[in-house]
Amino acid sequence: MSVDDPFEDLLVNRSVRILVTGAAGMIGRKLAERLAADGSVGGNAIGHLVLADAVRAEAPGGASFGIDRVQVDIADPRDVDSLVADRPDLVFHLAAVVSGEAETEFAKGYRVNLDGTRLLLETLRADGRHCPRLVFASSIAVFGAPFPNKIGDDFHTTPLTSYGTQKAICELLLNDYTRRGFVDGVAIRLPTICVRPGAPNLAASGFFSGIVREPLNGLEAVVPVGADVRHWHASPRAAVQFLLHAATIDGSLLGARRCLTMPGVSVTVGEQIEALVAVAGTDVAQLVRYERDEAVERIIADWPRAFDARRAESLGFKAESSFEEIIRIYIDDELGGRIPALAQ
Amino acid sequence: MSVDDPFEDLLVNRSVRILVTGAAGMIGRKLAERLAADGSVGGNAIGHLVLADAVRAEAPGGASFGIDRVQVDIADPRDVDSLVADRPDLVFHLAAVVSGEAETEFAKGYRVNLDGTRLLLETLRADGRHCPRLVFASSIAVFGAPFPNKIGDDFHTTPLTSYGTQKAICELLLNDYTRRGFVDGVAIRLPTICVRPGAPNLAASGFFSGIVREPLNGLEAVVPVGADVRHWHASPRAAVQFLLHAATIDGSLLGARRCLTMPGVSVTVGEQIEALVAVAGTDVAQLVRYERDEAVERIIADWPRAFDARRAESLGFKAESSFEEIIRIYIDDELGGRIPALAQ
Repeated sequence: MSVDDPFEDLLVNRSVRILVTGAAGMIGRKLAERLAADGSVGGNAIGHLVLADAVRAEAPGGASFGIDRVQVDIADPRDVDSLVADRPDLVFHLAAVVSGEAETEFAKGYRVNLDGTRLLLETLRADGRHCPRLVFASSIAVFGAPFPNKIGDDFHTTPLTSYGTQKAICELLLNDYTRRGFVDGVAIRLPTICVRPGAPNLAASGFFSGIVREPLNGLEAVVPVGADVRHWHASPRAAVQFLLHAATIDGSLLGARRCLTMPGVSVTVGEQIEALVAVAGTDVAQLVRYERDEAVERIIADWPRAFDARRAESLGFKAESSFEEIIRIYIDDELGGRIPALAQ
Repeated sequence: MSVDDPFEDLLVNRSVRILVTGAAGMIGRKLAERLAADGSVGGNAIGHLVLADAVRAEAPGGASFGIDRVQVDIADPRDVDSLVADRPDLVFHLAAVVSGEAETEFAKGYRVNLDGTRLLLETLRADGRHCPRLVFASSIAVFGAPFPNKIGDDFHTTPLTSYGTQKAICELLLNDYTRRGFVDGVAIRLPTICVRPGAPNLAASGFFSGIVREPLNGLEAVVPVGADVRHWHASPRAAVQFLLHAATIDGSLLGARRCLTMPGVSVTVGEQIEALVAVAGTDVAQLVRYERDEAVERIIADWPRAFDARRAESLGFKAESSFEEIIRIYIDDELGGRIPALAQ
C-alpha cells in the first residue's frame, strides 16, 4: 500500500474499519460521536468501529455501522494482537496515561505511553498484511523551556516531563515505522484543549478551562496565575477535526516528517477573560477572581506560549481564530447553546 | 548524589570504578588504552575497569588498576544486572549496532540500540543505590535532511535511519532519567570519526577515511562523490577526549538539556585531499582518484555538512582545528609518526 492515499487499497464496496484506542477519554468519546454522526471518513463509508480503552467506552448513538467496545491493556501483547487481528484500515491511537500520572507513576507512564505505542507498532509490523493509517495524538509537551516566543516546526523536542518524553519517543518511532513502510503514521501535537467539559480536575492546566467553564455555569473560578500568562489553546471540536484531517491527508505531502504541531489560539489569561466578557457579559466574568498560586505559576512558567504552525495550516489543519470562538463552541456543544449563568 | 560533581560521593581514598560497554569497538578500545595510560579520570585514581562487549575486548597494556573483560548481551537483563551490581561510578555506554546493520536488521537494531540502553537505565534506576555519571555515545545521525548549512543546538532531531531514531530515543530517555535523578547522564553526538584505522569497511561513510588512510599507506583510493561534498569530522583521539570531558564535566552547567553536538571540522572532500597534499605531498595525494558512485552520492546528499557546536565548545569540548591536524593525528597514533607511502 502506498502512503499517498490511506485508503486506496480498499476493495470496491468495502468500507473503512476503524480502531480508536483511548476511546473512553474526552477526545475519544467526541471522536466516536463525530464518526457515528458522519457515517463516513474521507468520503468512505465506515464499516466497523472498535472503541478500545482500559475501561469500557460509551457507545455513541445513531451509528449506521457496527461498534465493538473492548476493554484492553494497551501494553498487553494478547490484547493488542486481538485489536490488530481485525485489520483496521485506520487507527486513532489516543490511549495514554496523562501528564500528571506519568510523572508520579514513572513505570506506569512508560508502560502505557511508550510500551503500549511500541507494541501497537510492532504488532502491525509483525502482522505485515496491511499498512494502516495510524493517527497518533501527540502533545505540545514534547517541547520544554526555554523556548522562543513562537515555537517553529524545526525547534528541538526537549520535554521536561516523562509524559512529554514518552510522546516525543513515540513520534520518533512513528516516523521510523512509517519510513520503513510498516504503518502510515501521522502524529499531531495537540494544543491544550479548552474548554474541557465536566468537573474541574487537578491538572495544573485545569484552570485554563475552569476560568471559562465555571462562570458560564454560574460558579466562581480562581485564576492562580497573572493576567499576562500566555498559552496555546484549541477546542475539543478542533481536536476532533485535526484527528479526522490527519486520518485522510495525503501522506506524500508530509515526506519523512510525519509529526505536526497543530494550530491553535495564543491568548493570555487576561484575554481569555476579556473574551468571556464579550461572549457572556461582565456579570458572568466577575465570577472570576485572581488568587495567585506560586506552585502553579512555577509549573506554567515552563509552558509554551505560542507556536508557528504554518506547516500544519498549509496542510489544511484549521483551529479557531479567536478565544471567543472557543467559548462559543463550548456553549454550543456542551450547554445546548445557552448560558446557565444568564438564566439564573 | 548531586549531579554537579559526578564523583562527589566517592569516599575518601575510594577510587573510581568504570564500566565501558561496546569496549571492543574502535572507540572503546582507544578509550580503554587512554584510561590505562592516564590511570585516573578527573583527578581521581581509577580503581577498576570493566570492559564489556558482545565479544571479548582486548585488555590495554600498562594499567595500574584491575580490569575485567566480560562478554555480555546488552539487552539481556541478567547480563546487565551483573554489570550494574559492581556499582560503577562512571559508565561509558558505547555499545551499539552500527548504522548499516540497524537498517538491514530492524529488530536487532532496536533490541541492542534501544532496548539495551533502556535496560541499562532501568537497571540503574531499579538499583537505586547510586546515580552514576553515564556518558552516552550518540551520533549526528539524530539529524536528517533537509537541514540548514549549519545545524544549531536547537534544531529538531529528524533521523532518516533506524540507527538515528534509536540514538534520538536514547537521548530522550537519558534526559528524562537524569531529570528524575536515576542517572547523571551526558549524551555526546559524535561527528564522523576520521581517520578510522584498519581495513576499509563497507559503510557509506568509509571513503571519508579511506581517501586519506589508503594513500598514506601507499594504496590507491576512490572518491565516490564530487569534490564539493562537505561533511563533519573529528579524530578518534578527539572522540576519546570528548568522552573523558563528558565524564567529568559539572552536570549543573548542562541544565535539563544533557545532549550535546560535539565540535568538529567541516571540510569538503576536495579540502580533505588538499590537506593530504599539504601533509604528505602531491605524489601521495595522486593515489586518490574520483569515480562517482550514484548510490553513495544519493546517501551522502542527506548527510549533515556542518554544525554550530558553540554550546559544547563553551563547555570545554575541543575538536581539531583543521583537517591537516586530523591527518597528523592518524599518522602519529596509527603509523608511529611516519608515512609508509613515502618510505617506499
